[in-house]
Amino acid sequence: MPSQKPIKVALLGCGTVGTEVVRLLVDQADDLTARVGAPVELAGIAVRKPNKHREVPADLLTTDAAALVASDVDVVVEVIGGIEPARTLLLDALRAGKSVVTANKALLAEHSGELSAAADASGADLYFEASVAGAIPLLRPLRESLAGDRITRVMGIVNGTTNFILSGMDSTGAGYAEALEEATRLGYAEADPTADVDGFDAASKAAILASLAFHSRVTAADVHREGIASVSAADIAAARALGRTVKLLAICERVTEGDQESVSVRVHPAMIPRSHPLAGVSGAFNAVFVEADAAGEMMFYGQGAGGAPTASAVLGDLVAVARNLVQGGRGPRESAYAALPVRPMGQTPTRYHISLDVADRAGVLSQVAAVFAEHDVSIAAVRQEGRVDDASLVVVTHAATDAALRSTVDKIGGLPVVREVVSVMRVEGEET
Amino acid sequence: MPSQKPIKVALLGCGTVGTEVVRLLVDQADDLTARVGAPVELAGIAVRKPNKHREVPADLLTTDAAALVASDVDVVVEVIGGIEPARTLLLDALRAGKSVVTANKALLAEHSGELSAAADASGADLYFEASVAGAIPLLRPLRESLAGDRITRVMGIVNGTTNFILSGMDSTGAGYAEALEEATRLGYAEADPTADVDGFDAASKAAILASLAFHSRVTAADVHREGIASVSAADIAAARALGRTVKLLAICERVTEGDQESVSVRVHPAMIPRSHPLAGVSGAFNAVFVEADAAGEMMFYGQGAGGAPTASAVLGDLVAVARNLVQGGRGPRESAYAALPVRPMGQTPTRYHISLDVADRAGVLSQVAAVFAEHDVSIAAVRQEGRVDDASLVVVTHAATDAALRSTVDKIGGLPVVREVVSVMRVEGEET
Repeated sequence: MPSQKPIKVALLGCGTVGTEVVRLLVDQADDLTARVGAPVELAGIAVRKPNKHREVPADLLTTDAAALVASDVDVVVEVIGGIEPARTLLLDALRAGKSVVTANKALLAEHSGELSAAADASGADLYFEASVAGAIPLLRPLRESLAGDRITRVMGIVNGTTNFILSGMDSTGAGYAEALEEATRLGYAEADPTADVDGFDAASKAAILASLAFHSRVTAADVHREGIASVSAADIAAARALGRTVKLLAICERVTEGDQESVSVRVHPAMIPRSHPLAGVSGAFNAVFVEADAAGEMMFYGQGAGGAPTASAVLGDLVAVARNLVQGGRGPRESAYAALPVRPMGQTPTRYHISLDVADRAGVLSQVAAVFAEHDVSIAAVRQEGRVDDASLVVVTHAATDAALRSTVDKIGGLPVVREVVSVMRVEGEET
Repeated sequence: MPSQKPIKVALLGCGTVGTEVVRLLVDQADDLTARVGAPVELAGIAVRKPNKHREVPADLLTTDAAALVASDVDVVVEVIGGIEPARTLLLDALRAGKSVVTANKALLAEHSGELSAAADASGADLYFEASVAGAIPLLRPLRESLAGDRITRVMGIVNGTTNFILSGMDSTGAGYAEALEEATRLGYAEADPTADVDGFDAASKAAILASLAFHSRVTAADVHREGIASVSAADIAAARALGRTVKLLAICERVTEGDQESVSVRVHPAMIPRSHPLAGVSGAFNAVFVEADAAGEMMFYGQGAGGAPTASAVLGDLVAVARNLVQGGRGPRESAYAALPVRPMGQTPTRYHISLDVADRAGVLSQVAAVFAEHDVSIAAVRQEGRVDDASLVVVTHAATDAALRSTVDKIGGLPVVREVVSVMRVEGEET
């Protein structure tokens, strides 16, 4: 057994996740000691209002996070969230050679370069498994298990709130506003749901996933982001009619054109076939598909959020950091050597589903098809259905760029035979 | 950047997996150098018949594996399989302080203690991600990501051959012999399919999974093992009639009785509900469910075998080992501190499905139910169906031990009202 000197841990923040971290550290103290090779000791917990945290030992609480970080601790665990003061505190810790475990996706997605540089300079570890997909071991597989492979695609459901809302719309036929209200009432959406429903949370996670998968530095600002607020009951119904369902997906793709490689990183709602494994992921669960040249397709599934699941991921990282301190050595560093450029969304071809209300008369399809042809958007499948006094026309395209699609749809919307453009939505998860 | 001294690798074996390892090492040489911080160089490939390996560089081939291991190499990658000579070669390597990456499940399941001790004595690394579930990152998540959690259950489909056969029986109604023949014809089953169909392969993997999940040393001999040769078309039909399907499962469970903990490790066919995520895993794919106290339920899915997927896992380990050599430090060691005993199968309660052909007359159910009651086997559900001149009776029990169930079924088979015991099979994946 190596040194028995305890590993001293500073915990920054003590909300839902922090409370569970404290509980696990106490409940599993003996197991953690055996697994690490030394006791893991909580040295202090920085919070804003100590009297609000009766569930953790009072003598560990402090309001002075900076002093706690500067004190005699080996590891800093951060579960405050947000950019500041987390950024400054973690930079201080890393510069002082203290390893960091963080669940902070927003911080990582904006400042991972700065944090990694500080860790490298001092030789400290920086682990952040809990920042994406909660309890699901995902970053370690990407960073380590697949380090000898060439990842081509990462596509997943990484935000539980939006997935809960879209699952609700799909199963009840409710509109977006109604489904959001229900999610808020049940505690699945926050009072201000912007970060979730507008895709900011998923975009941060996509940036982190893309950085790891493609050995390139991708920040949240690089991610094309569309939320779910514009998904309508009509979109959901159109998807259902075609054996599809709508999910908010985070997609990171390697794009090869000639000998130029780039990455497309985007978050948007998309129709996927009901037979696709991601279609069955409902409520607050997360799941991520990964494709790599040699490994083929893989899927990771589990709880994407919540106190205990997120704390599990934090503890896994804490054990890794502590083992490194006991045994010597370091965890994987930032790997951004490939430095692939991010492809603008306007140049990223995706497939679309377009659902139209049209006049029920001969020649409609040929007029609509002509507009697609004119804009060089190739049609993959068409379905036409007559009803009492109107008809519906559904078109699924081959891959096309946003720009081409937008002008196509604008022109089609102006055709006299088209009564309404009911739904335009990207299609993912099918053979192209 | 740290030292640029190349990491020299000895490859033992060059079959399907080895050939792919060589290909990936060559194709991705630049990427691997960037990821590791030093070039990864193939120093030699030990094979039995050099003239059979025209696809790899001839000057690297040798028939003297022992000399290659003893030469100036840093890492030994073993993809020979089987116990000897692999065991002796890897022990020699580890004792000489050379790190080992192996895909050898049989060796790990029998001799992991000896190999780990040799690694610990010299400070070398021992990695074996490719030994279970091919390309699916599974061991690293168990060993590292969940190191701060308490795993309670690991249940999965870890053998592609048997899954292919059972999927075939389920979709075509074919019997076992016919489905096996088809699998052999298509190359999914080997000429001698014993290791797969009798569950030896899955049992080795179960031993490895249980060892990691429960921090205890579990060997293949500890695993209760039943193959699929006795699964009949009637079993599959009975499962289908109840909305279930039959899978060969590897199950590792933590069992708590009073303050005594033990582990149940077993491989056997079982009915699972068609709605269970493992039910949809068909053909040669693998999938593993993991349950942990804090993290909750997780699933890992991907290609469980094949040259390229297995080579991907080998390369991931090789990068980890090489990074440790460049940066200093070691990977996780064997963690067997919990030393939980393995519970004998006779004392492990599982649920059963029993399908009977019975006489179509009043009082049959009460006679059958009486036998269950007499043996203290509690009934969870019954379904009775009349047909032209006989009737079927299906019973699903609550958890019972093998011993109790066996005497119950023996006695029921002797009842005059019971024409035939059509199917007896364990049930998994449902709430108990």
